[in-house]
Amino acid sequence: MSWYPGTEREQRVNAGSLRVFTADLFERCGMTGVDAALVADSLVSSDERGVHSHGVLRVPEYVAKLRTGGVDPAGRPEPVRENGAALVVDGGNAMGQVAAMFAMRAAIERASALGVAFAAVRGSNHCGAMFYYAMEALGHDMVGLCATSALPTMAPWGGTEKLVGINPLAVAIPTRDEAAVVLDAAFSYSSHGKIRVFQQKGEPIPATWAFDANGEPTTDAAQALTGLLQPIGEFKGVGLAVVFGMLSTLLSGASYGTRLGNMTDGPKAGADGHFFLALNIAAFTDLLRFREAADEVVREIRSSRRRAGADPLYAPGGMEAATQVRYKAEGIPLNGATMEGLRFAAHLLGADAGFLNP
Amino acid sequence: MSWYPGTEREQRVNAGSLRVFTADLFERCGMTGVDAALVADSLVSSDERGVHSHGVLRVPEYVAKLRTGGVDPAGRPEPVRENGAALVVDGGNAMGQVAAMFAMRAAIERASALGVAFAAVRGSNHCGAMFYYAMEALGHDMVGLCATSALPTMAPWGGTEKLVGINPLAVAIPTRDEAAVVLDAAFSYSSHGKIRVFQQKGEPIPATWAFDANGEPTTDAAQALTGLLQPIGEFKGVGLAVVFGMLSTLLSGASYGTRLGNMTDGPKAGADGHFFLALNIAAFTDLLRFREAADEVVREIRSSRRRAGADPLYAPGGMEAATQVRYKAEGIPLNGATMEGLRFAAHLLGADAGFLNP
Repeated sequence: MSWYPGTEREQRVNAGSLRVFTADLFERCGMTGVDAALVADSLVSSDERGVHSHGVLRVPEYVAKLRTGGVDPAGRPEPVRENGAALVVDGGNAMGQVAAMFAMRAAIERASALGVAFAAVRGSNHCGAMFYYAMEALGHDMVGLCATSALPTMAPWGGTEKLVGINPLAVAIPTRDEAAVVLDAAFSYSSHGKIRVFQQKGEPIPATWAFDANGEPTTDAAQALTGLLQPIGEFKGVGLAVVFGMLSTLLSGASYGTRLGNMTDGPKAGADGHFFLALNIAAFTDLLRFREAADEVVREIRSSRRRAGADPLYAPGGMEAATQVRYKAEGIPLNGATMEGLRFAAHLLGADAGFLNP
Repeated sequence: MSWYPGTEREQRVNAGSLRVFTADLFERCGMTGVDAALVADSLVSSDERGVHSHGVLRVPEYVAKLRTGGVDPAGRPEPVRENGAALVVDGGNAMGQVAAMFAMRAAIERASALGVAFAAVRGSNHCGAMFYYAMEALGHDMVGLCATSALPTMAPWGGTEKLVGINPLAVAIPTRDEAAVVLDAAFSYSSHGKIRVFQQKGEPIPATWAFDANGEPTTDAAQALTGLLQPIGEFKGVGLAVVFGMLSTLLSGASYGTRLGNMTDGPKAGADGHFFLALNIAAFTDLLRFREAADEVVREIRSSRRRAGADPLYAPGGMEAATQVRYKAEGIPLNGATMEGLRFAAHLLGADAGFLNP
């Protein structure tokens, strides 16, 4: 998650200024101030945690979706079904972040009464990094668990057709003194973004990352990009992707797999689906004891023996939390391509990108 | 899951007779007829689906646990907390299967009223293959999702200490005409059982399966067995194992990780934890439409293009369902070691194992 192609043109940008700037861009696309700030926060929080693949490098793509891609900047999600602890939310073709946060908060509210709630979402769009919604549960003393459908980039194990998305899953678990345990993992070994960087550098990719168009492992980045992403753990990873993709779409009537679109033409606007599960810890057990036990898990990992030459050990989300502290203080490193994208979007929308100058 | 070391001494055994025989063994250990039949069914159903790692090869280990390992053959699980859609079950140090099925059924019952329910279990023991409980939801028109804590056999990514179990996750999703989508996956690449077979044959294991005691990849089976299992997808797999292990234990107060025991001394009796989530499909959407959409997912996978030389493609659980049909008709193949274990248990308990003779 925290991997990022550094370049010589890398530059540090203040996180607060980047939030204000990015929110302004989305407002200029017709979003309300509140919605624009939410999308901006989702992107900048990803950059802050080192998850640059879901950071502001997405701004040009998001601006295009709002202006010409059919996503409704004024779209309003609404609950279409509320049955005890089961909720269905229609995203109203809003930006995915708006729909996703609406659904996560609805699940949290319902779980505060019923202990548990599960919100299934349809009518949504790409909603950025999933940790963002799972972590929303933390402030409510809850566990958050969520997943989303993604454009198909993997084949069934043994197959050669792009049928399965990498369908990321995120889980956030409250602690007491330690950084919260936050996992956000897609079920592919790598991503198109990473492979593209290897292609630019002319370097071979690891043999576990991709298959060529015939379904054979390849170390050639160009062949990988026209081929398939490899799942983690062979049949296990693609199986996990299938079931979390089904749970993200079938309960709400969103589009599964190839029905969502493809990598060439992009997703169909308003066809995406996600799900959000909130678990109210106090409904199960003593909250403080839970938090202390979670702390113990984190400490045990952090203080355990390392392989010779290995980096410090972290529980899931620990490295991202440390990165966030550092980037908040020192600025977020953005590479040249990301900076260009922000300047381009600002130019297009008549915004001032002066603060990005070194 | 469906991998099994065939041997020359492999023999076919009738599934029905094996169920009766195995249940009788557990009754002779002091279990009620109903409980004994449940544990037997969990094991034989695993064998039937080709998941022999969780089949009747476990009988000698289970008999030992019941007679001398501190597991209570008469243990009775009970709900200790019921808060809306949140349930906590104490397994009463019963066999894990008894506690797990009690909790899954309690979640299903609660979800039939509230749409969703989540049962956290403590005071339990090894409960066999997780698909068995997830699939219990299918007959109630629900999705089942469950996970369990397992003895630690993996290290944090970059570490060398056994802190993390492979903590399997299972998801079962109803279909209409196709076999149900059933995933059951642990977050390790391989298992001790598989590695042991390579050791017996004197063959090297794949480099992705294990680390030696220093945390370096090894192809030496003996070093692997004293070392660590490798997670799927590097840091992703071990992160998934950590969070599903935490969800399996911290909400109920069960023992996480090393507190559950270790591979040398085995688990502490009555310390294990699991969780069970039931999603009542009709609370979210039209049941028939859901089933048809699930069928489409399965058919799309099955009819998609294969890599040259690849076996037929299946959605998760499809191969296991086909195996079950075949083994029900033709008998379950059991290898020599498993047969010996059954005969040994029968001898110990004064049961007649005559039907096992060729």
